Amino acid sequence: MSTESFPAANAISECFEAQAGQVAALIMKYHASIEQRPVMSSAAPGDVFGALPQHAPETAEPFENVLRDVECIIIPALTHWQHPMFLGYFPANASTPAMLADLLCAGFGVQGMLWQTSPACTELEMRVLDWLAKLIGLPESFRFGAAGASSTGGGGVIQGTASETTLAAMVAARYAHGGTDHSHCVVYGSTQAHSSIEKSAKLCGIAQDNVRHVPTTENLAMNPAALQEMIAHDQSAGRVPIFVCATLGTTSTGAFDPIGTIGPIVTASNAWLHIDAAWAGSAFVCEEFRGSMRGIEHAASFNFNPHKWLLTNFDCSTFWVNGAARRKALIDAMSIAPEYLRNAATESGEVVDYRDWHAPLGRRFRALKLWFVLRMFGAAGLRAHIRSHVEMAQWLEAQVNADERMELVMPRSLALVCIAARAHRGNSANELTRAMHDWLREDGRLFLTHTVVPDGTPEGRYTLRVAIGTPSTRQFHIAKAWDLLCEALENVYSTSAG
Amino acid sequence: MSTESFPAANAISECFEAQAGQVAALIMKYHASIEQRPVMSSAAPGDVFGALPQHAPETAEPFENVLRDVECIIIPALTHWQHPMFLGYFPANASTPAMLADLLCAGFGVQGMLWQTSPACTELEMRVLDWLAKLIGLPESFRFGAAGASSTGGGGVIQGTASETTLAAMVAARYAHGGTDHSHCVVYGSTQAHSSIEKSAKLCGIAQDNVRHVPTTENLAMNPAALQEMIAHDQSAGRVPIFVCATLGTTSTGAFDPIGTIGPIVTASNAWLHIDAAWAGSAFVCEEFRGSMRGIEHAASFNFNPHKWLLTNFDCSTFWVNGAARRKALIDAMSIAPEYLRNAATESGEVVDYRDWHAPLGRRFRALKLWFVLRMFGAAGLRAHIRSHVEMAQWLEAQVNADERMELVMPRSLALVCIAARAHRGNSANELTRAMHDWLREDGRLFLTHTVVPDGTPEGRYTLRVAIGTPSTRQFHIAKAWDLLCEALENVYSTSAG
Repeated sequence: MSTESFPAANAISECFEAQAGQVAALIMKYHASIEQRPVMSSAAPGDVFGALPQHAPETAEPFENVLRDVECIIIPALTHWQHPMFLGYFPANASTPAMLADLLCAGFGVQGMLWQTSPACTELEMRVLDWLAKLIGLPESFRFGAAGASSTGGGGVIQGTASETTLAAMVAARYAHGGTDHSHCVVYGSTQAHSSIEKSAKLCGIAQDNVRHVPTTENLAMNPAALQEMIAHDQSAGRVPIFVCATLGTTSTGAFDPIGTIGPIVTASNAWLHIDAAWAGSAFVCEEFRGSMRGIEHAASFNFNPHKWLLTNFDCSTFWVNGAARRKALIDAMSIAPEYLRNAATESGEVVDYRDWHAPLGRRFRALKLWFVLRMFGAAGLRAHIRSHVEMAQWLEAQVNADERMELVMPRSLALVCIAARAHRGNSANELTRAMHDWLREDGRLFLTHTVVPDGTPEGRYTLRVAIGTPSTRQFHIAKAWDLLCEALENVYSTSAG
Repeated sequence: MSTESFPAANAISECFEAQAGQVAALIMKYHASIEQRPVMSSAAPGDVFGALPQHAPETAEPFENVLRDVECIIIPALTHWQHPMFLGYFPANASTPAMLADLLCAGFGVQGMLWQTSPACTELEMRVLDWLAKLIGLPESFRFGAAGASSTGGGGVIQGTASETTLAAMVAARYAHGGTDHSHCVVYGSTQAHSSIEKSAKLCGIAQDNVRHVPTTENLAMNPAALQEMIAHDQSAGRVPIFVCATLGTTSTGAFDPIGTIGPIVTASNAWLHIDAAWAGSAFVCEEFRGSMRGIEHAASFNFNPHKWLLTNFDCSTFWVNGAARRKALIDAMSIAPEYLRNAATESGEVVDYRDWHAPLGRRFRALKLWFVLRMFGAAGLRAHIRSHVEMAQWLEAQVNADERMELVMPRSLALVCIAARAHRGNSANELTRAMHDWLREDGRLFLTHTVVPDGTPEGRYTLRVAIGTPSTRQFHIAKAWDLLCEALENVYSTSAG
């Protein structure tokens, strides 16, 4: 097997089962030993690029050579997102059920741009999106329901990233307003909303001057009164509010915009209310974490990423529209029907063609992984997964609250804990917190990312985000993370004292 | 194992190796038996949706149950893109090296939005994109080259689909022209260009009135004189030509726009010339198929899909920019830098952060599959793969030319053969060709899609596209396809005679 070369079109090698076994073994070995590695790669810019040959090989190389380079060149230059001490950004969950489904997806090699190009690819997606909508408590109007494609409900779709769903929602919103001159269209998100709003505006040609950053209240949630005022001001100036993004669980600190209050304001303005719950949406599988969903009936569209915190490998960003009219607006904004894609099923109107639900035409069979995850963990398993991380965050919150040297910059949000040092002996809180972060980066055992929380100063508050949610993280890892935070601070104290 | 239920965060099951073995075996069985199935699923709308439970399971289900449903519910409702008689659309190649890499990608579960979030994920992509650029004959200015991230060359990136790269190129083009009022921006493609130009224009807010469909010459390639005239007319009316998409290998008939002539016209107009070689680009690994690349130095960006015809599983759409100035234009159009993504590596300017090269923020480690494919087939293997399909198409072309009942509607293009019946005993060519298509669909042994070729009539010429490129297709399958085309026509003759 080691000297095998593939003849022209021998795409399905007889060695595949054995090779898949080798890859599966490597994956198990990787996860079993992940804790022995520093979380973040120590590779310098250019290391991997320079280690790889300058040209593709002329003739086929044996699989073993490739696998050897995976171990020698690739793995050492990974940042280990599945490491239990990876508490940076937001998590990107991976699980073996999702891996198995991804393998199956690759194995089938079908492409689901139209219903006709693989009915199962479309209809499994419709069904699991209905399952998931129900599981997180979205109202019935977001689901296809028993009527399937002919539903008066909206229905859901899998996209690649939350950024892409924001773009899709914004384009649908703009289309719903008609016209070709978009220079008067205005979009709104809080000052804490995700950068994808600005990026979507750039992509879809809405001037940066017409992207509103709505001020927040002290908990960093959008201030509804400020939104109302901005909308009124824009309207009186002849501009058209088309799109408001409310965030449930902001990237920076996990703040929740009050959609119950925002909803009626947006509805009155005739704009499209999009809910970005990219991270927090996974937690809504637990009823006790759904308080922020009050007012969801005002939303035109809703997004969250099972690839963040619901055990489903990247990419899996789920997006729903509320009711058939919103579904129509989305499809009208996206659909183009060239002759070479025409077919009887599409023209019957009895099917969903997902190519009209997003920017890409082609699409992978991503529903498989969501289906495998939902079945192999079960709703109860997913809830336990979420709750375990929230409990760890509660424990960490208690440690910080009991320690005079540090403080919570913002209240804990689900499993996100925002921590900073307090000022100490002439060193400012920001100096100390930055130095802690530098120490932790140098140390390598714990990976955190930071944010800057507005505090009325020009500089803001430098804050360490502890984002719990990697599946391998256990309570003792969080205890270790807390020890490392304390160790970092002690070291910073002694350095700044010296 | 069969009764295993996953406790909360046990994302990496000890049964994974065994389960991966079962999936690999299922994939091998699927491919081994694929030829016994009709190419297209006979599922009716709602069949799969209705066969699935209405709710997600409350508790974990054993893997075996899921796998059983894959066999009973999913597989019968697939359209088999890897079936040797799948000659519709364009192919979507799958191969076991790419499957292994996709499994590994899922296994690592890393997310490559920034260089820092996994250096290997970024730098392997930079390197294999350089490999591939060289392999298809793109000039050096499209590659990173030895200088890597600091290159004066452009460099490449993997995106999901050609549609997304068209959008990225159009947004970069618009950004390069500055300003916030885009109502005067005009984009151009031939009447035969892909629908993604129109869709991208819709997405990025360019009025449909400002999307020009440039007439073609008799071979359905863009007419450069007509382009020049349209550009001049738009300019004299105060509009701004920002983007021209030239297609190498159109979706409908595989026509090649003459970029050697178009290039200087676009350059003179200061617009961005994007090359869409989504399908044909794979063939450029063979020097003898590169004639249409003459003039490529005028291009600002270039795209093709290894997931179509280069043995790399969907999704893998490769996109290059020509020179550092175009790279800067793309990045300037796409980048947004919130605090929570700031890091030292990015700020050093010594690394590439691919999130700024496209709409999505998060990204999978897709470079792995391109790397596995390039190494495990080798350049020679990929060339043989392409040549084998072109040879099959030449054989089919010869059969059609030797048969008085049918004709080539357009000259064969690489491995795409466009065939129609000739008029016969009072039945028009279109009636007969449509009826042949209906017969083939009913029969189920051969899957073709159609197009309508402009022929001066309002109706146009109904044409069957035989798109050879599925890896399992061998010469005898094409012989069988030819027999089926003849059988279809005989049946149509006898029916219309009766």
